[in-house]
Amino acid sequence: MASVVTFSNNVNDVLADAIHTLRPSKVLVLVDSNTSRCVLPLLPILESAHVITIPAGEQHKSIDTLTHVWKQMQQADATRHALMVNLGGGTVTDLGGLAAATYKRGIPFINVPTTLLAAIDAAVGGKTGINFNGLKNEIGVFCDAVQVIISSCFFGTLQREELMSGYAEMLKHAMLTSHDELDRLLGQQIDDMDWDDFLSHVETSVNVKRDIVAKDPLENGWRRVLNLGHTVGHALESLALQRGTPVTHGHAVACGLVTEAVLSHMALQFPSPDLHHLATFVRNRYGAIHITCNDYPTLLQFMHHDKKSRDGEINCTLLRQCGEPVIDNNISEADMQTALDIYRDLMGI
Amino acid sequence: MASVVTFSNNVNDVLADAIHTLRPSKVLVLVDSNTSRCVLPLLPILESAHVITIPAGEQHKSIDTLTHVWKQMQQADATRHALMVNLGGGTVTDLGGLAAATYKRGIPFINVPTTLLAAIDAAVGGKTGINFNGLKNEIGVFCDAVQVIISSCFFGTLQREELMSGYAEMLKHAMLTSHDELDRLLGQQIDDMDWDDFLSHVETSVNVKRDIVAKDPLENGWRRVLNLGHTVGHALESLALQRGTPVTHGHAVACGLVTEAVLSHMALQFPSPDLHHLATFVRNRYGAIHITCNDYPTLLQFMHHDKKSRDGEINCTLLRQCGEPVIDNNISEADMQTALDIYRDLMGI
Repeated sequence: MASVVTFSNNVNDVLADAIHTLRPSKVLVLVDSNTSRCVLPLLPILESAHVITIPAGEQHKSIDTLTHVWKQMQQADATRHALMVNLGGGTVTDLGGLAAATYKRGIPFINVPTTLLAAIDAAVGGKTGINFNGLKNEIGVFCDAVQVIISSCFFGTLQREELMSGYAEMLKHAMLTSHDELDRLLGQQIDDMDWDDFLSHVETSVNVKRDIVAKDPLENGWRRVLNLGHTVGHALESLALQRGTPVTHGHAVACGLVTEAVLSHMALQFPSPDLHHLATFVRNRYGAIHITCNDYPTLLQFMHHDKKSRDGEINCTLLRQCGEPVIDNNISEADMQTALDIYRDLMGI
Repeated sequence: MASVVTFSNNVNDVLADAIHTLRPSKVLVLVDSNTSRCVLPLLPILESAHVITIPAGEQHKSIDTLTHVWKQMQQADATRHALMVNLGGGTVTDLGGLAAATYKRGIPFINVPTTLLAAIDAAVGGKTGINFNGLKNEIGVFCDAVQVIISSCFFGTLQREELMSGYAEMLKHAMLTSHDELDRLLGQQIDDMDWDDFLSHVETSVNVKRDIVAKDPLENGWRRVLNLGHTVGHALESLALQRGTPVTHGHAVACGLVTEAVLSHMALQFPSPDLHHLATFVRNRYGAIHITCNDYPTLLQFMHHDKKSRDGEINCTLLRQCGEPVIDNNISEADMQTALDIYRDLMGI
């Protein structure tokens, strides 16, 4: 059952209504050490909730943390009629969703994402999970939150890098929608944001994902359009991690979007002006992730082992133009190397 | 999506067909130390499968075993297109179902129950789970096997006690169906069973559960009819465990069915001849679980804390007659004590 998604900056009131409607036997709230301090005090409706705190950081999206959360749920005497509120970034919504989906074979949960990345990407779409034995989101289930409350009022305190990380997923959604939508985002006054006004852009972006997920909730096909930018993005992210100079997910995705727009131009005549407009924005706002042709073998290796790959082929979602994605393009190593050459030119490296 | 359920003693052929239809990238098979030795060699279709073995016994239905299974799945390079075959009793089907349902957010699995209890109770109905921190089935999800293959050809080697444990759940299903069905089971030649013939009784019994589960897959209401015999049964099972003289689940359920038939007679005029017929069978075939009135406070305590209880009331499914269950009867302590007195009389203790 797809979640109710509410866009509002009156989070406390929306949450109060939701709790009133659901009439849970008990309210549990999952926070990390950051949202415990900065966000929880802003929501008086959660004053009497049983608070479960986990350490901040993706390294805690683990089986150990999950076990800790299950024990805390037991300690709170939570029955099947309890409700879990996940208040935080993607780690909190992913892990909290999995904890709720598996506790006594499932209790309802509400996601309140507090980062732009979680709002755009993690909180909607039914994916829950933890990392396991070195692999990302290796253990999890598809389980929809009963409600997702998306607001922009927490984004003002995000570090710029965190904000831009979420913004890359918005760029992706815009590219999957239309030329105009992409133009709007590329022209946004990011340094002087009106957060209330920004909520409508977030809503537009989240709804792109919801429409795609509704067509393919269990990721058997069409949902792979959401992989745009991510084959190259994941490879760049892994390379940076291997070098000991990690980049944010969004930074890698932004550079991935540029490279896959190049591939789209090469294979499907994606319009050159959109490609250049995007590349200029990414160069100015994110900066290049530096690579040389010596890095190509490693990058190709990562792409062959991407978890979306089948039979070891390099698989990308490409665009004929903004709003016209094509899934399951197999890319030759030669074409990928050419695209990476052009990426480097466009980024001035 | 409800499972395909196949009743057949040609397990190898049915499994071969299923694998042929599903075309998995790889076949994993989960066995315990018993089924690895006694059952796996009977199924040549699984010769080339990747075998994952766990120790036998419910004490291994744990997060540690689950973690071990996930790691083995990774080690086998299982992708989302792999298939898991759970070959064993309830511990294997429950834990294996959960492992499959959560690995990479879910891969398909087939249950091949090898005990009567697993065939009748565990393998069908979508419940997966492990015990956690002292509580039974505390962590799990509802997730249907793509197929359940039920046969009686493995039951001949079961210990008598194990066989009778499953038989108690068959008695329960018969009581939920009709007077005639109950009579049939009470008249069965258990000591000299024709196993091929018995498969049709198993089929009838499993279909009772399937019909109930189909009406209420997530256990929000009607599925609670399956709790018949279990409020008292769980209390007797817990008491026996506490005393250090554990009984099988089915033995406790059999005595629970007698006591709850007494309650049904007291509250809803359940026919006395059926009650006496059942009680005689249970006394002869299972024997009494011995209790005195000194045990009543402990038993009542367990019943108040039963996980199906709401607000601490003692809650039972009762019968007007065989085939006419009524869920959610609140039972007073006085009535329960009277019923336990009569249970003791009927069992000759």
